[in-house]
Amino acid sequence: MTADAATIRSVVDAYTRAFGAGDQEAYVSLFAPDAWVEDPVGTPRHEGHDAIATFFTQMRNMAESIELRLTGPVRAVSGECAFPMQARPTMGGTTMVIDIIDVMTFDDDGKITTMRAFWDTADMRPADD
Amino acid sequence: MTADAATIRSVVDAYTRAFGAGDQEAYVSLFAPDAWVEDPVGTPRHEGHDAIATFFTQMRNMAESIELRLTGPVRAVSGECAFPMQARPTMGGTTMVIDIIDVMTFDDDGKITTMRAFWDTADMRPADD
Repeated sequence: MTADAATIRSVVDAYTRAFGAGDQEAYVSLFAPDAWVEDPVGTPRHEGHDAIATFFTQMRNMAESIELRLTGPVRAVSGECAFPMQARPTMGGTTMVIDIIDVMTFDDDGKITTMRAFWDTADMRPADD
Repeated sequence: MTADAATIRSVVDAYTRAFGAGDQEAYVSLFAPDAWVEDPVGTPRHEGHDAIATFFTQMRNMAESIELRLTGPVRAVSGECAFPMQARPTMGGTTMVIDIIDVMTFDDDGKITTMRAFWDTADMRPADD
């Protein structure tokens, strides 16, 4: 059965929490074994658990901490979803903000099969809240 | 040259204004001749100017008026974009709200080549603002 909206929302919640906590194992476990990640859109895809784990560590190592903060509801439909968020990395004691929209597809077991992240470094700015 | 962020943002602005104004001709002109629209995600695609024009009229006829209101920045990258918005149709004097994320791709001339709209009728609600 296609992943329903409640399942998708719970996976997105686990996704942002695992990322914020720096929990690589929990993060990777949300993906199907042959899933791929394109982050940001237009860059080479990271395919499979090992590549996604490596990419996760690279992203996390760019900052002392990174919070993912949803800025609106998860739009879930037909086994896919899109949601608006901010990544808020803290680097050298300064928190920056990047507006992102993640688009994900899911398999029937509720595992993420693809993730595409829409954002551009040009739009990064210091946090004012 | 790949459509840049400024071009993409201006097309999105024209898109929401043409939709809100009910201007079918202006709306359709933003799409490439062989563009397709999948709205909502998971439903059959409307391909080509004629099909998109017909779909536009069907959507507009469902309500007395429909405002598209952006609720966050357009994330433009690599000739694609995603943006969060609300569709606010007024039906029988009551304004409803539907949270949507549109994902679009563009050709080198800045015309929309594909549009996928993430939303579900289950999430429609009366406007409280």
